[in-house]
Amino acid sequence: MKEKDFIQTIKTILNSGYIGDDCAYLKDLGIVVTQDSLVEDIHFKRDFATPYQIGYKSAMVNISDVCASGAEPKYLTAALSLPENITKEFVEEFYKGMKDACGNIEIVGGDITGSDKIFISITAIGKTAGRRISSRKNAKPGQKIVVSGPHGAGAAGLTELLSGKRVGKFIKAHLMPEAQLEFSKKISSNIQEDYAMMDTSDGLMDALSQIAEASGVLLDIDFNKIPYDKEIEKFENYKDLILFGGEDYQLVAALTDPQDFTVIGEVKEGRGVKIGQKIYTKDEVEKHLFNHFEEKK
Amino acid sequence: MKEKDFIQTIKTILNSGYIGDDCAYLKDLGIVVTQDSLVEDIHFKRDFATPYQIGYKSAMVNISDVCASGAEPKYLTAALSLPENITKEFVEEFYKGMKDACGNIEIVGGDITGSDKIFISITAIGKTAGRRISSRKNAKPGQKIVVSGPHGAGAAGLTELLSGKRVGKFIKAHLMPEAQLEFSKKISSNIQEDYAMMDTSDGLMDALSQIAEASGVLLDIDFNKIPYDKEIEKFENYKDLILFGGEDYQLVAALTDPQDFTVIGEVKEGRGVKIGQKIYTKDEVEKHLFNHFEEKK
Repeated sequence: MKEKDFIQTIKTILNSGYIGDDCAYLKDLGIVVTQDSLVEDIHFKRDFATPYQIGYKSAMVNISDVCASGAEPKYLTAALSLPENITKEFVEEFYKGMKDACGNIEIVGGDITGSDKIFISITAIGKTAGRRISSRKNAKPGQKIVVSGPHGAGAAGLTELLSGKRVGKFIKAHLMPEAQLEFSKKISSNIQEDYAMMDTSDGLMDALSQIAEASGVLLDIDFNKIPYDKEIEKFENYKDLILFGGEDYQLVAALTDPQDFTVIGEVKEGRGVKIGQKIYTKDEVEKHLFNHFEEKK
Repeated sequence: MKEKDFIQTIKTILNSGYIGDDCAYLKDLGIVVTQDSLVEDIHFKRDFATPYQIGYKSAMVNISDVCASGAEPKYLTAALSLPENITKEFVEEFYKGMKDACGNIEIVGGDITGSDKIFISITAIGKTAGRRISSRKNAKPGQKIVVSGPHGAGAAGLTELLSGKRVGKFIKAHLMPEAQLEFSKKISSNIQEDYAMMDTSDGLMDALSQIAEASGVLLDIDFNKIPYDKEIEKFENYKDLILFGGEDYQLVAALTDPQDFTVIGEVKEGRGVKIGQKIYTKDEVEKHLFNHFEEKK
């Protein structure tokens, strides 16, 4: 089964309005919560990343999910399952990486158990006071699509690593992404309307497609307006890295007043994501994306 | 390395006052949070438990941790890592079990990824309003030690399973424990003093020893006052099942007014846990406990 089919099964059983966005918004408690896992040889390889980098990224991907909701990231808990041969140094470096990624966000608990491979599951909690919380259901025709920064670097870095390189221009972008705290805050603490926001960790096109699907709209994107590092043009199929590559941890939002953000398109009546003359359906986007159950990196 | 050494390493790096209790108490948000993992062949076996039972227990162990804090369990998130051959039916049954364990507690999110073995990590969030939150540091000489119910059934059930039985008096206690919501609420919503409370999931003696160590006190326990099912006496070393067995998910608390709770001992000046004439140091208790890194169930 594919991840997205599992999620549909879970939604049906739980019949919960909370499942859908990356964070669950718990209004009565004034918080959002998100939980994401990283599994050895699927999400990271010890051959590619140092323990410090694994810790750094594990924290950052969850902080990024809180940023996507518009809430203020405040606390993290971490559950690790570790093989017997893991050393004290690994644990130390992992936690140093997590701590550095966290900045003022506090790591407040977790759990350690045994396992054959390394499993990391992080929960992040954000405070919603003074912020308006996003939902991917909120895009409306007439809104602009804005992004927080360049795309393609995460996937370009992975391409470098997979080709055997351990030094490369984009490797750091892949191993140590940065969550977009300021972009998130600037939007969520000022906006007066409901808006959609997601991070692009699974690919810019995935985020756009999820917003289009959940909101029942067409997102009309101008590829030439998507910011990216020109050196990515050296990679084969570089447009795919930018659109479908993932691991960028930028934010994409649909809102009426784009202020001084980078506008890459607009929300229209219809369904799907339009790039140039082609409209990608949800299924077509999914076919281009990486799926953990089919292909292990 | 042992789990407890890892935790010491983590405490040193994070230099955090939050690490220590099973839940982190986030006062500014009015919540507690806890995260615990269950790994296939370490915490459960598919040969022993149905998917429904695995889901049920996964939720319950985290609800139990919130109960140990005294907070009101409100929300759960679940991260699953599943092998490719896992069926839709497994996921359905797992979530039905989680949902039934939750009752009014809502499952609000999570994550599914691939892996070789099943890895489950659950986060539970509790609301602290109207409750006084416990800490294992809070035991003081003069307080009584109370328990919420009988001990030994969880370990007796595991003994039955390991001996090849699939039907047995104590198997359900092992596979489908019940968190002690009422005992927790009764204490935390009325008590006027700081108090210590833990669940006994890692063994009654572990909980007692952790409270003794964190509070710098001696817990003087009368074994004859510990409630247990008399049929457990049929098991070899039945006293060890009751004291060190674990998987009971009862609560143990140190407080001044025991009301009508079952008193099993009292808090005194000193260090360690006294049973009869023997005082167990922290190290002696740990030697008797199950350690995930040494011995796989």
